[in-house]
Amino acid sequence: MQYPEPIAKLIASYMKLPGIGEKTATRLAFYTLGMADEDVKDFASALTAVKRDLHYCTICGNITEDDPCPLCKDASRDQKTLLVVERSRDIMAMERMNEYHGLYHVLHGTISPSAGTGPMDINIPSLIERLKSHPEINEVIIATNASLDGETTAQYLAKLIKPAQIKVTRLAHGLSAGADIDYTDEVTLFKAVQGRTEM
Amino acid sequence: MQYPEPIAKLIASYMKLPGIGEKTATRLAFYTLGMADEDVKDFASALTAVKRDLHYCTICGNITEDDPCPLCKDASRDQKTLLVVERSRDIMAMERMNEYHGLYHVLHGTISPSAGTGPMDINIPSLIERLKSHPEINEVIIATNASLDGETTAQYLAKLIKPAQIKVTRLAHGLSAGADIDYTDEVTLFKAVQGRTEM
Repeated sequence: MQYPEPIAKLIASYMKLPGIGEKTATRLAFYTLGMADEDVKDFASALTAVKRDLHYCTICGNITEDDPCPLCKDASRDQKTLLVVERSRDIMAMERMNEYHGLYHVLHGTISPSAGTGPMDINIPSLIERLKSHPEINEVIIATNASLDGETTAQYLAKLIKPAQIKVTRLAHGLSAGADIDYTDEVTLFKAVQGRTEM
Repeated sequence: MQYPEPIAKLIASYMKLPGIGEKTATRLAFYTLGMADEDVKDFASALTAVKRDLHYCTICGNITEDDPCPLCKDASRDQKTLLVVERSRDIMAMERMNEYHGLYHVLHGTISPSAGTGPMDINIPSLIERLKSHPEINEVIIATNASLDGETTAQYLAKLIKPAQIKVTRLAHGLSAGADIDYTDEVTLFKAVQGRTEM
């Protein structure tokens, strides 16, 4: 006996999400069956809306309902500093910090030799274009992840941008807040020692 | 800065699923944003369809597109044996085993003193009604989970049904297939010893 078709289809849809296998998808599908009608209706329309109403900002690549995005449109932001991130979500993290008031640029990925992603496959050409047409930008902060691919991308961007006499900086690497030295991995410790600052 | 409204709504919907917190919901929402249009459309319609097209069988309580469900309608099944499960999903598990050919009854829960669920809150009245109107049923197999609430429910049902001269049985408890004695918990081991069979 098979699951009734509607539930089998929902299981298949849940399984397309990352980290959700058949068991979890089945559990979620049956849970959905027991959810309030209104909640399931909202869920379905949220799914439709997210694909219909959200676009990438043509300037910075951030996800947005309006183009250009509110961040690019905000003239009160520091127009001389550009912070480069891998994904839109990283912008939200930076904005939550509430200490950065410049512009952003989203790469939508990293250079990844292992995955076969080169500089032309991510938003690097648009970044270069943007720097050329906005000579007021005098610092590019590279905020890619502290991963191998993030590092590769940062190095590549630095080499590409520095000849244009633009200051290129990179987020500091070191201990996270509240970190216990004893539990910190060797690479982080090494970076923390390398990047030690005078007191 | 907040997430754009469409993504915030989708995050809220994902968070209504069991075991999905804000971090995972955010990850899933952004992943959805990158999914193929077709897949998201299918997902949304699967959600709608599951609530629209699936109902509970008025005889056994199983989820079904048609009422009565295919299992209740199938006259070739053994009409004398009724297997009682907690949830519709348990029927699917039994059917996958392919060794049981009788009827089913879904309780949609258990008696749970801790959660304040009593016998009238689950499908027990309809089970009793069904046994009364179908005197040909001569065995009720109780297949509730091996949990405290499952056990309570099984005991309650046995007391309720046995006076009607109907045989009431319970699934065996013991080692699962391939189980390692060394890694088996004490309760299971105890049940396995208690239920030992002659060779």
